[in-house]
Amino acid sequence: MSTAPRPEASPAAPALAAIVPAGGLGRRMGGTRKQYMVLDGRPVLLRALEPLLAHPEIGLVVVALPAGDVEDPPAWLADLAPRVRLVAGGAQRSDSVRSALAAVPAECARIVVHDGARPLLPVAVLERTLRAAVGGAAAVAVLPLADTVKEVDDAGRVVATPDRARLRAAQTPQVFPATLLREAHRRAVVDGVTGTDDAALVERIGGTVLAVAGSPENLKITTPEDLLVAAAFLARRAGPELANGLRP
Amino acid sequence: MSTAPRPEASPAAPALAAIVPAGGLGRRMGGTRKQYMVLDGRPVLLRALEPLLAHPEIGLVVVALPAGDVEDPPAWLADLAPRVRLVAGGAQRSDSVRSALAAVPAECARIVVHDGARPLLPVAVLERTLRAAVGGAAAVAVLPLADTVKEVDDAGRVVATPDRARLRAAQTPQVFPATLLREAHRRAVVDGVTGTDDAALVERIGGTVLAVAGSPENLKITTPEDLLVAAAFLARRAGPELANGLRP
Repeated sequence: MSTAPRPEASPAAPALAAIVPAGGLGRRMGGTRKQYMVLDGRPVLLRALEPLLAHPEIGLVVVALPAGDVEDPPAWLADLAPRVRLVAGGAQRSDSVRSALAAVPAECARIVVHDGARPLLPVAVLERTLRAAVGGAAAVAVLPLADTVKEVDDAGRVVATPDRARLRAAQTPQVFPATLLREAHRRAVVDGVTGTDDAALVERIGGTVLAVAGSPENLKITTPEDLLVAAAFLARRAGPELANGLRP
Repeated sequence: MSTAPRPEASPAAPALAAIVPAGGLGRRMGGTRKQYMVLDGRPVLLRALEPLLAHPEIGLVVVALPAGDVEDPPAWLADLAPRVRLVAGGAQRSDSVRSALAAVPAECARIVVHDGARPLLPVAVLERTLRAAVGGAAAVAVLPLADTVKEVDDAGRVVATPDRARLRAAQTPQVFPATLLREAHRRAVVDGVTGTDDAALVERIGGTVLAVAGSPENLKITTPEDLLVAAAFLARRAGPELANGLRP
């Protein structure tokens, strides 16, 4: 019996797993679940999974779906088993990440979190983020902010203009040492913290989070306008010249 | 001689003037001056001016150009005189706004500032901002932030995650009581404040700035990607169906 694996262990347990929160109900898209919307022939969520599945070190991808969709997932998603495992997400994004975290084998040393609504992750951004998250540090892909940021009060009055030079827009991927991410979520539950990203949960328990360069292409589909922008980026990937004669 | 106007006054002095900083040298566009780039047949700056020129209350638009361009402006810009007046901009955006401010008649009670690199300002956003800037208050068009914001230190380490619910991305138009904008710029020069937007200069001297809803369409052209996004928004304006079959 000495060669029998422990229940939570497996000879195939990967060193690197990915978690993809995709449990959104599309409230900002008029009830349309953005993760299933088709972008130039393929669903947004499938596009979000592709760079993860193409990565040689990512052995397992756990996708948190809207709870009712796990039993009867879209065929294109079911076909990705067993490398893609489906779990029921929760009301908040962080609930979905925690559900997925419970399905990641204990042997995984690092975990990549990537939004199911980011369909155009460049491979280079994934690689950069993975390379930065070493030595116990987490890493998050970010962008400079194009616009000045204002802080407003409840009445819509501007109360401050933070220094933009020190601010970044956080994207995913966010890569974490697995123990750090698990501890951050455990303590978030204890402390009742919700409504923020995984990196912020790690920051609040004192973990080191490094910012690395993301990409404008790597946008999150939140509104119908975003889908239009994503289609424009895809058209550019397809060829150097656009329909209207603009050269990017 | 009792009917002679004072030098700074004029029977035609408008109650409302616009200032358009367009002095950028295109450093982030590889030296291409983004304000002159052609977006679906018309220059970005011309598109930025059109909703201002179409507004019945805006009597004068002062455009701050790169200094060398004022003597020999593009023909499409020269043709807009006398309603559009050209002045030499400065090294910083705020220098350009101050140059333009000096060319606005003292009789103008309110001033609209609008970036020359925002070519797709919806008329409704301009109207909303103008309506909000009354009773001595300034108003600025803003958007919710799509991404979580991180504050980083010089080493690229994340040091904080500000509460996104209280943050907005500032766009233009920004509308000000003329006396307030002039005083804000005067004190910015005295205090050596640079690198921020006009609303922030008003905030720092205690002026009231109200946030009103901007538009995703109203993006600022800063990178080649932005031009691509703007072209996608324009294509949507042109018709309900996109080339790739997506419906927005």
